[in-house]
Amino acid sequence: MADKKLVEAITSMEEDFAQWYTDVVKKAELMDYTSVKGCMVFKPAGYAIWELIQSQMDARFKETGVENVYLPMFIPESLLNKEKDHVEGFAPEVAWVTHGGNAPLQERMCVRPTSETLFCDFYKNDIQSYRDLPKLYNQWCSVVRWEKETRPFLRSREFLWQEGHTAHATAEEAEERTIQMLNVYADFCEEVLAIPVIKGRKTDKEKFAGAEATYTIEALMHDGKALQSGTSHNFGDGFAKAFGIQFTDKDNTLKYVHQTSWGTTTRLIGAMIMVHGDDSGLVLPPKVAPVQVMIIPIQQKKEGVLETAASLCDRLKKAGIRVKVDDSDKSPGWKFSEQEMRGIPLRVEIGPRDIEEGKCVLARRDNGEKVECSLDELETKTAELLASIQKDMLVRARAHRDAHTYTAKTMDEMQKILDTTPGFVKAMWCGEQECEDKIKEVMSATSRCMPFEQEQISDVCVCCGRPAKKMVYWGRAY
Amino acid sequence: MADKKLVEAITSMEEDFAQWYTDVVKKAELMDYTSVKGCMVFKPAGYAIWELIQSQMDARFKETGVENVYLPMFIPESLLNKEKDHVEGFAPEVAWVTHGGNAPLQERMCVRPTSETLFCDFYKNDIQSYRDLPKLYNQWCSVVRWEKETRPFLRSREFLWQEGHTAHATAEEAEERTIQMLNVYADFCEEVLAIPVIKGRKTDKEKFAGAEATYTIEALMHDGKALQSGTSHNFGDGFAKAFGIQFTDKDNTLKYVHQTSWGTTTRLIGAMIMVHGDDSGLVLPPKVAPVQVMIIPIQQKKEGVLETAASLCDRLKKAGIRVKVDDSDKSPGWKFSEQEMRGIPLRVEIGPRDIEEGKCVLARRDNGEKVECSLDELETKTAELLASIQKDMLVRARAHRDAHTYTAKTMDEMQKILDTTPGFVKAMWCGEQECEDKIKEVMSATSRCMPFEQEQISDVCVCCGRPAKKMVYWGRAY
Repeated sequence: MADKKLVEAITSMEEDFAQWYTDVVKKAELMDYTSVKGCMVFKPAGYAIWELIQSQMDARFKETGVENVYLPMFIPESLLNKEKDHVEGFAPEVAWVTHGGNAPLQERMCVRPTSETLFCDFYKNDIQSYRDLPKLYNQWCSVVRWEKETRPFLRSREFLWQEGHTAHATAEEAEERTIQMLNVYADFCEEVLAIPVIKGRKTDKEKFAGAEATYTIEALMHDGKALQSGTSHNFGDGFAKAFGIQFTDKDNTLKYVHQTSWGTTTRLIGAMIMVHGDDSGLVLPPKVAPVQVMIIPIQQKKEGVLETAASLCDRLKKAGIRVKVDDSDKSPGWKFSEQEMRGIPLRVEIGPRDIEEGKCVLARRDNGEKVECSLDELETKTAELLASIQKDMLVRARAHRDAHTYTAKTMDEMQKILDTTPGFVKAMWCGEQECEDKIKEVMSATSRCMPFEQEQISDVCVCCGRPAKKMVYWGRAY
Repeated sequence: MADKKLVEAITSMEEDFAQWYTDVVKKAELMDYTSVKGCMVFKPAGYAIWELIQSQMDARFKETGVENVYLPMFIPESLLNKEKDHVEGFAPEVAWVTHGGNAPLQERMCVRPTSETLFCDFYKNDIQSYRDLPKLYNQWCSVVRWEKETRPFLRSREFLWQEGHTAHATAEEAEERTIQMLNVYADFCEEVLAIPVIKGRKTDKEKFAGAEATYTIEALMHDGKALQSGTSHNFGDGFAKAFGIQFTDKDNTLKYVHQTSWGTTTRLIGAMIMVHGDDSGLVLPPKVAPVQVMIIPIQQKKEGVLETAASLCDRLKKAGIRVKVDDSDKSPGWKFSEQEMRGIPLRVEIGPRDIEEGKCVLARRDNGEKVECSLDELETKTAELLASIQKDMLVRARAHRDAHTYTAKTMDEMQKILDTTPGFVKAMWCGEQECEDKIKEVMSATSRCMPFEQEQISDVCVCCGRPAKKMVYWGRAY
């Protein structure tokens, strides 16, 4: 039995989801506040998840031809100012560097909130001919936005992310790349993080500052709130015109490039916590679990127990599994609780009697199931179970999402759903920002996206009753 | 034959080494200047080298128990000010953020030039008991120092690095870790970058601001100048006392921790260029070459040539080798030059006659040797050659270093060596900073380190003639 003391240290999800989240982040030692206001520290357990996300997402980028680069973290004010919508969107929330080496700067610079302007400035010189296209660049870095509130992984003044920036010869190619990267994100979320997402387009009100079109993947958290989990933007030639990024095409005429950008952040870790976690703590999908299997010896002082645990650990390591033995002097019950709190997908229990009988017990973190396993079959059974856990977590998350996705034909229906059984609300929209604003004002819900898979729920806008143009996913969001 | 035009675009090393370096960096497309003063962009070919350095160095760190974390990029002024020597060393060269989101900050913050103060602030809360020790943390990030000059990879206002920060229960353990990480660096340089290094201790004049002892690895560039390639610092309990980092030891008394930090930067890429490069461009050690083998088809329009090239590429990929085919419409000679300029370790030449005879030609970048290879043996022969190249590059670099390491007993001797055949000069030193200052003033040479392997070159200081305490490596440095 797991020791209850550790678990009691976290608030129950039903009681206070926000507090549950903070407790889990703290008790699982993922992240902590710092004395730098608005900034967080990624502790080893939290950063290791990010490393696993990075390496697997990066491999998917590279398969599509993307190359990594690194651009400066500073943006001179004149550069930020070049694209009108972009500067309006970002200037109010940047940090300004005004002094360098004790002397005031001639021109102040902001710490990048995003790097479109820097990439444009770079592409302007780097692109001359159609032969130089496409440029498919990405960078992993941190960015700064001067937020007022801080929530671990979800919102902080500095956060880690990747930002892809591409330049193409044609509008079609740019649109294709925008959708391609959205699909990379969606597949990654489902296959690696076990988080099902809705793919769609943002309304003009919600799109990125400077974009022609913003596409998004939206996920539903356990508490029924939505989380924007990745976005992909098509800039058309707007930035190219503002920055003068031209190339000589095959027909020997000078043309503007078409650009895209796309990003995901450490928010994904927050999403994973809020989609899969439970009252015992974190539940990690095996593909991003820094430790996939924790071996916990029972009666470890008895002869041969620690030695057997160590040898099982070696065997699993050789089979390519991320595994550890907890041979500390805590009680097994306490160790169980810790393993559960940290979301380690699988536990191996091994004691003197098991050793005698040539078996061990495997306990799944996701559903609590325990099975006996012959020691001969340890590697295969462990690999099978990890694969099942990964698969089942997605199935469960999808079922939860679907069970909390509703349709509404009237404002009253929508309001009632959001107030009683929060989730995604599918409802029709006339296309006017006025209605979006009203829905936000009345029920604190925003348009999450106009999904690619449209349904005709009714013929009229849920808000104004005028003819409907689009079905929209609405929700209260993080 | 390689096409000469591309090569002619770079200055010869003998003529102007500094210009040769800049030309190679530019022509091999590693890095470029930006319109952000003092900041560089890592282009794909340059960043890919850094990724290979990161992954292999990171694995070595983790083998010693180090965990990765991420701390904020900002340091509030009051935090930077806590350790007296440290702030004196760094405050004059930091960038200050004074405004966030359009409002002046209550307290200005600098962008981290290094993160000792942030780690201390974190450890202060995170360490309570001897059970929490040691802490073995590292982070990969960028840091900012307001330099006046910029040289690609060697010096820029923002650069990429890793910084390890550890906390220990005893002074002995901290010293052990300091030396252990220096050894990790030295082994990495020799085994991965094929750069031989001298390990030693910095004089007090040259040590890190706030350190009790700084250890260094020093490498010799092709032009005879020295490059500090990695440093490891023992802080004793100085920072712990300034920040109040205490723990309850096993004997139930409160003690200060002992700390270390250690770092390497993208300078390592500069070192690699300047140690191995030649008049045809870059020469990359196979272990950090993003492309290890370039397959260049000859008469590629003839039937079967491109198909064969592609199938050889597939075979090498399957064998775990990083390989590409250059099937562009440039001439083979031009492709040879490009492959050489980019430092790709091995070239496979394959044409219609080769295919008929079931063979190809393998050309080594490091020494220009060409061998025929039966297509049946492609994988084994390629792997063998890559291993030989890696090994031979270190041997060659060590021979060059040794041939340019001299001893001097007088100032005149030292001056003559530095002015005619630059390199490391081993000479005795009395231990007084006065003599270090004088040597620097007279011949622009600095003490690189007091090597672990001491020799007794004479009994008296090369500068003042007083009794000698240490043999020192002197040199002109980057």
